[in-house]
Amino acid sequence: MELKENCGITGVYGNKKAAEIIHSALFSLQHRGQESCGIITGSGKNHSSAMGMGLVSDVFKPACMKTLRGHFGIGHVRYSTTGSSSPKNIQPFIAEYRGKTYAISHNGNLVNSTSLRRSLEKRGSIFRTSLDTEIIMHMIMMSRKESFIEKILDVLPEIKGAFSLVFFSPEGIVAAKDPWSFRPLCLGKLEEGYMVASESCAFDFAGASYIRELEPGEVLVIDGKGIKSILPEKRVRTARCIFEFIYFARPDSRVFGESVYHARKKLGENLAKEFPHTGEMVIPIPDSGSISAIGFSQKKGLPFEMGIVRNHYVGRTFIQPLQESREKSVRIKLNPIKEVIGGKDIVVIEDSIVRGTTSRMRITDLRKSGAKKIYMGVSCPPIRHPCFYGIDFPDSRQLIAGKKSVKEIEKEIGVDGLIYLSMESMLASIRLPGEEFCTACFTGEYPVPCGSQARLKKERFETGRRGKE
Amino acid sequence: MELKENCGITGVYGNKKAAEIIHSALFSLQHRGQESCGIITGSGKNHSSAMGMGLVSDVFKPACMKTLRGHFGIGHVRYSTTGSSSPKNIQPFIAEYRGKTYAISHNGNLVNSTSLRRSLEKRGSIFRTSLDTEIIMHMIMMSRKESFIEKILDVLPEIKGAFSLVFFSPEGIVAAKDPWSFRPLCLGKLEEGYMVASESCAFDFAGASYIRELEPGEVLVIDGKGIKSILPEKRVRTARCIFEFIYFARPDSRVFGESVYHARKKLGENLAKEFPHTGEMVIPIPDSGSISAIGFSQKKGLPFEMGIVRNHYVGRTFIQPLQESREKSVRIKLNPIKEVIGGKDIVVIEDSIVRGTTSRMRITDLRKSGAKKIYMGVSCPPIRHPCFYGIDFPDSRQLIAGKKSVKEIEKEIGVDGLIYLSMESMLASIRLPGEEFCTACFTGEYPVPCGSQARLKKERFETGRRGKE
Amino acid sequence: MELKENCGITGVYGNKKAAEIIHSALFSLQHRGQESCGIITGSGKNHSSAMGMGLVSDVFKPACMKTLRGHFGIGHVRYSTTGSSSPKNIQPFIAEYRGKTYAISHNGNLVNSTSLRRSLEKRGSIFRTSLDTEIIMHMIMMSRKESFIEKILDVLPEIKGAFSLVFFSPEGIVAAKDPWSFRPLCLGKLEEGYMVASESCAFDFAGASYIRELEPGEVLVIDGKGIKSILPEKRVRTARCIFEFIYFARPDSRVFGESVYHARKKLGENLAKEFPHTGEMVIPIPDSGSISAIGFSQKKGLPFEMGIVRNHYVGRTFIQPLQESREKSVRIKLNPIKEVIGGKDIVVIEDSIVRGTTSRMRITDLRKSGAKKIYMGVSCPPIRHPCFYGIDFPDSRQLIAGKKSVKEIEKEIGVDGLIYLSMESMLASIRLPGEEFCTACFTGEYPVPCGSQARLKKERFETGRRGKE
Amino acid sequence: MELKENCGITGVYGNKKAAEIIHSALFSLQHRGQESCGIITGSGKNHSSAMGMGLVSDVFKPACMKTLRGHFGIGHVRYSTTGSSSPKNIQPFIAEYRGKTYAISHNGNLVNSTSLRRSLEKRGSIFRTSLDTEIIMHMIMMSRKESFIEKILDVLPEIKGAFSLVFFSPEGIVAAKDPWSFRPLCLGKLEEGYMVASESCAFDFAGASYIRELEPGEVLVIDGKGIKSILPEKRVRTARCIFEFIYFARPDSRVFGESVYHARKKLGENLAKEFPHTGEMVIPIPDSGSISAIGFSQKKGLPFEMGIVRNHYVGRTFIQPLQESREKSVRIKLNPIKEVIGGKDIVVIEDSIVRGTTSRMRITDLRKSGAKKIYMGVSCPPIRHPCFYGIDFPDSRQLIAGKKSVKEIEKEIGVDGLIYLSMESMLASIRLPGEEFCTACFTGEYPVPCGSQARLKKERFETGRRGKE
Repeated sequence: MELKENCGITGVYGNKKAAEIIHSALFSLQHRGQESCGIITGSGKNHSSAMGMGLVSDVFKPACMKTLRGHFGIGHVRYSTTGSSSPKNIQPFIAEYRGKTYAISHNGNLVNSTSLRRSLEKRGSIFRTSLDTEIIMHMIMMSRKESFIEKILDVLPEIKGAFSLVFFSPEGIVAAKDPWSFRPLCLGKLEEGYMVASESCAFDFAGASYIRELEPGEVLVIDGKGIKSILPEKRVRTARCIFEFIYFARPDSRVFGESVYHARKKLGENLAKEFPHTGEMVIPIPDSGSISAIGFSQKKGLPFEMGIVRNHYVGRTFIQPLQESREKSVRIKLNPIKEVIGGKDIVVIEDSIVRGTTSRMRITDLRKSGAKKIYMGVSCPPIRHPCFYGIDFPDSRQLIAGKKSVKEIEKEIGVDGLIYLSMESMLASIRLPGEEFCTACFTGEYPVPCGSQARLKKERFETGRRGKE
Repeated sequence: MELKENCGITGVYGNKKAAEIIHSALFSLQHRGQESCGIITGSGKNHSSAMGMGLVSDVFKPACMKTLRGHFGIGHVRYSTTGSSSPKNIQPFIAEYRGKTYAISHNGNLVNSTSLRRSLEKRGSIFRTSLDTEIIMHMIMMSRKESFIEKILDVLPEIKGAFSLVFFSPEGIVAAKDPWSFRPLCLGKLEEGYMVASESCAFDFAGASYIRELEPGEVLVIDGKGIKSILPEKRVRTARCIFEFIYFARPDSRVFGESVYHARKKLGENLAKEFPHTGEMVIPIPDSGSISAIGFSQKKGLPFEMGIVRNHYVGRTFIQPLQESREKSVRIKLNPIKEVIGGKDIVVIEDSIVRGTTSRMRITDLRKSGAKKIYMGVSCPPIRHPCFYGIDFPDSRQLIAGKKSVKEIEKEIGVDGLIYLSMESMLASIRLPGEEFCTACFTGEYPVPCGSQARLKKERFETGRRGKE
Repeated sequence: MELKENCGITGVYGNKKAAEIIHSALFSLQHRGQESCGIITGSGKNHSSAMGMGLVSDVFKPACMKTLRGHFGIGHVRYSTTGSSSPKNIQPFIAEYRGKTYAISHNGNLVNSTSLRRSLEKRGSIFRTSLDTEIIMHMIMMSRKESFIEKILDVLPEIKGAFSLVFFSPEGIVAAKDPWSFRPLCLGKLEEGYMVASESCAFDFAGASYIRELEPGEVLVIDGKGIKSILPEKRVRTARCIFEFIYFARPDSRVFGESVYHARKKLGENLAKEFPHTGEMVIPIPDSGSISAIGFSQKKGLPFEMGIVRNHYVGRTFIQPLQESREKSVRIKLNPIKEVIGGKDIVVIEDSIVRGTTSRMRITDLRKSGAKKIYMGVSCPPIRHPCFYGIDFPDSRQLIAGKKSVKEIEKEIGVDGLIYLSMESMLASIRLPGEEFCTACFTGEYPVPCGSQARLKKERFETGRRGKE
Repeated sequence: MELKENCGITGVYGNKKAAEIIHSALFSLQHRGQESCGIITGSGKNHSSAMGMGLVSDVFKPACMKTLRGHFGIGHVRYSTTGSSSPKNIQPFIAEYRGKTYAISHNGNLVNSTSLRRSLEKRGSIFRTSLDTEIIMHMIMMSRKESFIEKILDVLPEIKGAFSLVFFSPEGIVAAKDPWSFRPLCLGKLEEGYMVASESCAFDFAGASYIRELEPGEVLVIDGKGIKSILPEKRVRTARCIFEFIYFARPDSRVFGESVYHARKKLGENLAKEFPHTGEMVIPIPDSGSISAIGFSQKKGLPFEMGIVRNHYVGRTFIQPLQESREKSVRIKLNPIKEVIGGKDIVVIEDSIVRGTTSRMRITDLRKSGAKKIYMGVSCPPIRHPCFYGIDFPDSRQLIAGKKSVKEIEKEIGVDGLIYLSMESMLASIRLPGEEFCTACFTGEYPVPCGSQARLKKERFETGRRGKE
């Protein structure tokens, strides 16, 4: 699968190398967003920030890192969607209020942002960005409560949808998660101090040890007095995004408390059980299908071969000079090995299918490289509905499974057999209770109402993309 | 004289080449600010903007200009003060409000911004910049009035100090000037449509004809219905900045309705009348002393010689690799010609003296180049007080005339005779009534109270410069 | 293994999309050099070139590609060694001679360059670069022969060592290989015209079909008259670099006519046969150990697991802001997965060991992640001698196997068992005759004498790096 | 007048701040070339260099300056002609020869470069640039003489045309001038050590005192043994470029031993004597006409007014986004002041007329600004012939005076009277003997034969510009 919307967030408190730790964490979270990145650090008295468009390695040069002082701070990597990229949307979102500086890093998507924004504008708020994050900052500053924490607690119940947040204030950092727990956010212990991050892989380089995932709706205050957890009084239905396991998260991470590697391998094993076809080898679509393919291979007893090579130098910066077709971009990125698959019956493992166009091109390429029979296993059910909680799926008309049957898709992408993993097997692949996941993109049952407003916003955004900054 | 604070603003309505006209106007106004520049244009339905740090020629490349479409827009060039430069302070200041986009270009400085900002923050406003402009935008959006024009009219009486403003809205542009008329702003007629600009030189390249200066306190609405002028009900004392004639404005401009060239030449003529010394030639300190020196030369009957050459390649980008002393930077910029002044008694004409350090260095240089007697004429009275209306004068302790007599200054800068133009002659050099000028920097009589708040702000800013963005 | 010296070269003739094909070929060959890249194309009458420091995706922007016209051309990607990078060393090396333009792309390293350079200097040649390529160009231009081809044939016998070359002249392109065939170079057929490239993976994206590897000492003239092959009259001992199979080449390539994937998998299978230890899983050091690990896993019957994750965003651009130690750089690039290897006995597969420092750090990391027993398999014999034919191995004192026994290395890098593949098994893994490979780095038996001169040059280079451009 | 070809060169020996002095000298010589600049410095054992496209202030940043160590070195600023700019043509031209580093800075143009290049190519020399400088370097290195100085002396007699040169070798620097003395080059004494530069203005900032102009054909060796002058045995006709006084050189410089300011003022005085018309004021075309206009004004008794303002922010970086016409670029650079010239009869002073197009545009602009009668004085005779010694004049067909009479030019550019200074008066304005100047551009009498070859080269260059690097 290609391009889905998401972001990576992190925060550190109580370590004099806060900036360096945040920097390495953003490196580890880079797969969650490559458009822009930012860091703000502080000591309570002073603060400093650095941000820019591009990769962590491009934005933070040594000279820049030296200016980031203080024992706490937060960071952000932002996902790129074509057309809407703008320097003004870089996060953390920083604001000055009564002579003090506050900032927010946000991963997720609100479903009631349109109405929230409208009511803020009625009260005179002006906006500089199209970020949900700015809405949250406005609401907090307008709260009548006294302290920053109280203001946060006052405002969070009003915002609906997916949000994992890390706040920066002169006192320290605050981590918060929506009550549905749509997006991951976990807590780790540094040799000195604490850190939070979207995925646990961010802890490894910093030498932090994993403590736990934040609870649904939990607010975690980390400052000079230590750590304080505030849990919501009443709980709502938990709705974790299952796509974090299927595609987003790194295999060396834990999200929602579970190992992504184990979950992903189990998806492959379960797919093998439901897979009626066979072949001479199992080949993953790199890199997202690799772990599932290992599980599949072991369970099915077919040899695992890396029959498609990924060119890691072809990133988002590859602007095709040829411009002939998107096909070339796909082909230069993934190259099937004739010597491996030529004349063979193969099983290819893909994590998911969105529009189907990319899959079709890859199958064409495999045919050209001499593959005989091609069976495809997909490690999740058909995606039929858009996501309003932060994943950049198109609407149902553009989702291939939104309008076609599995048989039709099989034909369209040109495989000799196409098997999607069943819903039950998918949920059974992860140790967490199945009913605590959001599966709206498969079923259309949205855990948080997101009727006309969110749809409107999605549309407005896409229209907006045509506009100019 | 060196570096004083100011900005240049412009706006165009009703011309399909709006962006190009604004671009050329900013070129013409570049002397009012070299730190950053920006343009926003629109058609009512869409808008587009471009801005950046640096000169107009660096920021607006052809590819960038192509994206600026629409029949109206506004522009800004910003002055540079060491240390406080930041991309976030670039103007026009743009905000979104209820799905529409508004923008402001501002030249001037408010004296009650601290209290205005404080009361806005009490109501929950958050700030992203340290600009007075953002305060004005917040106030307008919070006004209970219905239309954008009504909101502007509702808010302007609350802001005190110097402001020439051009607003951008989906309907068109609005130009406004503070009731004291501190800063210039004039109206011109394009072949199609209208334009406003800080100085009339901006009209020349665009082929616009000069109509008139805006009245004190006037608000000029230029949109699809034509031009509408709204004048304040009661007038206050007019207080035009006389420094626009002495130093800021280009000699090919009209400001406040008067020709700068004529005023500046008259300053030189009047200085000649009061000048007791003589010499073999008159030499201007380029470029600001040139026109006065011509007037002086003609009235005094002494030959005018360009005995000091200015190196135009030494701009603000000259970061001295030597770092030894500021003296070298001064010397490489202005080079006296030994063959012209060697062995001669000379009269040098300077527009004004601020700290006195630059003047002293230049006199030293002239001595090294062989000048015998050196008499200096200054085309304004001694500057003894800071400015709170937009000029970057230091406080009285750093102003050489704030603590020393003319005789002492004469000695300190090392001239054989130093003559300042008298207040009466200065005011008599310009055809406008003398009592309608602000002369606070000479007299300490401030036309708009600017007690502790403005002073505090000045101080805060200077402290702030030490901080980090 | 880390950092070895090499380059990638390509050439196209007879296709109006020559520039685009070269561009895509360089993308495919990017793994052979990331420091700089360049392209020159022409039509016989005109030519145009573009080159720069950095990756193919950074250097060739669409606007730049448009300027590269003509139906033939050559390209180059250059390997990066810290400290010696300089824009002047970018290839293709272009020279003008009698009003015509010639260029060379070179992969390899000469052993008699010092004496060649000295004799050229005696005749008055001046040099702008430290490239062997410039020496070759000088020699060709000084040849008394008439045509460009004759000059090439006149000069090639004088140069000793490793060279795969592609020449550009107003008539077309010429490909040439040293008589020992140290470096690969193969010929492919485009839909229109022909292309040559270091590895066959460059053909895939261009839609070219693989024809054959160039013969040792072959010169291939490709111009308007078609293809003409010139073979050397007497043959010398063939000495193909076996490291192309072990590490350099992409697994989707053929080099020297053989599939890299098959060779590399066979290396793993043969290693499995000689491997006395066992464990619960086989883990490759990504990416270079992956294919051998698959072969190992299948032969040994142990499950293959991707227990170490590579962060592809950490490239050569990662300048550590921490600067504490190289260890951190290694760790952020490869992250072991605790959940996979914790508490397990594992076999890790590495392609080769050079200094041993990187291996030691990785083993330390695996221990920290909870691995119990760690056995390491290396898919080649111990490297004990430097390479003078183009690979950036250090001298014997810095090669860990140059001074320590396998038992000592085992201890130093901290594994519970270390097995190197035997020489016989390594050679048996590839279908080509074993005696046609250069194995000097293992045995010290150099197929082309490279005594004091080459050693001197190696030393001079390393000293030179301390100098300043 | 606009754009003429030239360069600026400098060298320093015996001062530990060599790089800083060269840097400031290049700043002072920036008017002689804005395309690119470079510095090489050394200590005999080591050397370091820095160069780049653009202005001195853009290329040499503090970090870069720090790397330039040693007690001697040379520098260069290069003139920009549209289309032919290329990084490879940046000077000083550096070459390595027998392990040592040599460099040349060159101002001028050879007339026999085509034949020199051809014979070098016959001997096998290859070229990387289109610079005459590279030819000189090749010839020196091919000389059979032993020492670098002897080689220079051996080779200089063979090269014909205009050249002022500064050489850099491990021993020190060497300055040399062609026997005709086409281009200026002068010697100055630093507090410690010596320096040479194209113009004496380069000495002022460095605190160097002017010693003398180099003699025609003189070679000046400056190294550890002091200064040694070598004069040619037989002298040829001296042919100094008179355009240095008319346009090129800065008014604060001495060239060929004479003050530019005095010469230029005298040109204006002599023009006044021959000027039959009168007006209400004298207005220079800034900046090149300013000093002549002062002389004219004083002699004629007409008031001097700066009636045209130059916008110094419009440099070569002004790429018109409008692209409509070159007229706009001219107008935005020079703005006539309506309030000064409106309704007046004026005399404008121009230094020279080349194609006539720029002059016509300016006269149109002055008319639009309200000038009544416009008389133009030109401070040199009509330019009718191209220059082969370094000035970028077009060929006779494009020179307005090459095909039209003064009366016709008067009509074409639209003035009420046009007076060129006479040849006699021009030569009489400078204290040097008139017969020692090259006046070929006025008379067509070329002091050094430059028949078909130089013409060919000129043509080839202009053709070459259409090509691509």
